[in-house]
Amino acid sequence: MPVITIAMDQISEEKKKQLVENLTREAAEITGYPAEFFFVYVQEYPEENIGVAGKTLKEMRSKK
Amino acid sequence: MPVITIAMDQISEEKKKQLVENLTREAAEITGYPAEFFFVYVQEYPEENIGVAGKTLKEMRSKK
Amino acid sequence: MPVITIAMDQISEEKKKQLVENLTREAAEITGYPAEFFFVYVQEYPEENIGVAGKTLKEMRSKK
Amino acid sequence: MPVITIAMDQISEEKKKQLVENLTREAAEITGYPAEFFFVYVQEYPEENIGVAGKTLKEMRSKK
Amino acid sequence: MPVITIAMDQISEEKKKQLVENLTREAAEITGYPAEFFFVYVQEYPEENIGVAGKTLKEMRSKK
Amino acid sequence: MPVITIAMDQISEEKKKQLVENLTREAAEITGYPAEFFFVYVQEYPEENIGVAGKTLKEMRSKK
Repeated sequence: MPVITIAMDQISEEKKKQLVENLTREAAEITGYPAEFFFVYVQEYPEENIGVAGKTLKEMRSKK
Repeated sequence: MPVITIAMDQISEEKKKQLVENLTREAAEITGYPAEFFFVYVQEYPEENIGVAGKTLKEMRSKK
Repeated sequence: MPVITIAMDQISEEKKKQLVENLTREAAEITGYPAEFFFVYVQEYPEENIGVAGKTLKEMRSKK
Repeated sequence: MPVITIAMDQISEEKKKQLVENLTREAAEITGYPAEFFFVYVQEYPEENIGVAGKTLKEMRSKK
Repeated sequence: MPVITIAMDQISEEKKKQLVENLTREAAEITGYPAEFFFVYVQEYPEENIGVAGKTLKEMRSKK
Repeated sequence: MPVITIAMDQISEEKKKQLVENLTREAAEITGYPAEFFFVYVQEYPEENIGVAGKTLKEMRSKK
């Protein structure tokens, strides 16, 4: 019944598959719950919706 | 002031209306708070962003 | 695989049971997913950790 | 390391920048952590995914 | 109807009051919603439940 | 800047350390972000606050 959520910027479908697979595998092994008990939610945000140090990711990246 | 969030895959507008109405009604009745105090957020995710048992929902459904 | 979270102040164990039962039943009926697919998390907060209209619930209630 | 999340309906990019900047500044000042330690996530929802008092925001606004 | 959540380590009741007050005030001003529409949740975690860079906050602080 | 949250029942401090370490390591490797960019929150709930299939975990376990 554990629920893993990862909030971040937008990523490829392949990376989402890997996150779902690997985060579930590690957490199942550590907690002792079978993988079937785990839900994972990949919460993707546009760069203008994420703030780091008071600036949006979009602002930070456009300045580079 | 309670906040109900439901995370799931994508659903119709009609089902969202029903979720908002029924979850609020049940929770208001149980907790004793008036319906006006409740916020509901329906968090919809694409099938490739949800993992069950280490596979994305998209992978699971495409195999059927 | 839907996950229902309800954030609110502290409540009795009996009310938590009812919330888990009724919110799951309603959401299962509306979405068509079996009840077995649902997880519910009751997120309880002390009154000093909840804010409404810029005041903590504790401040608001102590003034009454 | 604090994470601030604001869930609401859809807003302009300019308002997101201001939320990220001002919420970080206020929280940094109050907690004593440097702004660099803060992440902000602006969680935008369509009006049909938000419920207030048992109605979706979309239903409420279309009635006005 | 916006909901602001701040996840962090444990803080004093006075700081919680200030967070609730100031985050609500700033967000109300930016979004144009009245303060009455805002809920704030201060999500406090023990230091052993927070990870930064792969270490718990407790591990990091005990090494200093 | 990714934030990983794991919601589950109560676990030992040692398991929390391992979750923080391993989930960060896997997610850093997959996404390409350095481990320093990751925050992890272990959200522990009492068994009476978690629902599975319409029953609290406490109810389910007391019946076994």
